[in-house]
Amino acid sequence: MNRKAFQDLYPDELCHCYGCGRLNEHGLQIRSHWDGAEAIAVFEPRAYHTGISGYVYGGLIASLIDCHCIGAAAAATHRSENMDLGTDPLPRFVTAALHVDYLRPTPLGVPLEVRARVEEIKGRKVVVAATLSAEGEICARGQVVAVQMPESMTSPGHKD
Amino acid sequence: MNRKAFQDLYPDELCHCYGCGRLNEHGLQIRSHWDGAEAIAVFEPRAYHTGISGYVYGGLIASLIDCHCIGAAAAATHRSENMDLGTDPLPRFVTAALHVDYLRPTPLGVPLEVRARVEEIKGRKVVVAATLSAEGEICARGQVVAVQMPESMTSPGHKD
Repeated sequence: MNRKAFQDLYPDELCHCYGCGRLNEHGLQIRSHWDGAEAIAVFEPRAYHTGISGYVYGGLIASLIDCHCIGAAAAATHRSENMDLGTDPLPRFVTAALHVDYLRPTPLGVPLEVRARVEEIKGRKVVVAATLSAEGEICARGQVVAVQMPESMTSPGHKD
Repeated sequence: MNRKAFQDLYPDELCHCYGCGRLNEHGLQIRSHWDGAEAIAVFEPRAYHTGISGYVYGGLIASLIDCHCIGAAAAATHRSENMDLGTDPLPRFVTAALHVDYLRPTPLGVPLEVRARVEEIKGRKVVVAATLSAEGEICARGQVVAVQMPESMTSPGHKD
């Protein structure tokens, strides 16, 4: 897909995330788009992203769900405020909580599809549910509690 | 630390995990040891393991908690059966569920200490709680539900 992903709309200084930062050359560069009411991301793990041989590493699955849901939280907030995805800057969220249930081993060597649906937008907090599928079968379910990044995280001298 | 880590005691064919496999040259190679009743792992993220600049990527934190708790589940099961950590083979667990609460941003550029405590051993299922600290401050708390790997995961033709 050549159209802009949610993560392409983060400001440059917030684009170094290992999971989804377009400016992190070592990272996964997860890219998320709207597909109707859901957000979708497709990612093909590399051979070394294994857990038990032949299956995808659970930490990678957690990472995919995390960054994709954070992107969905940002885009959904943006949409709820009637902003235009192409022009208005996207708010940046961070993860307050992440939960993943691994339902079955996820096969390595095929593209993984992550789908996210926003369950609740409540002020600066957004709750997002996700599934991760391989070959049409759901292998993991996740939930992310996303919060808008505090200003202090980009301020010098920030402690918490 | 030069002494053997839990992960050094997995059989070779189960040592390719991106998070903790000693035979995965691209991976994180997380190493866990007993420290009294707790298991401890120390990991220093690389500069590119960032989320928001200056802070550690949440997916990495989830990965550290995941693999360390899986190692602790294996070692605790081993210990509960009066097996010797140096000689008897360690059982291999996989993750059924992972939960992480991100309490504060985790600073990048310092070693992270992950501590795990086994909460429950019930047959093939082990529940493990963890904290992740930087500079003496707890930045994240996690819980892993670990289950002994089904034989079928190493059998050809396995589907689930």
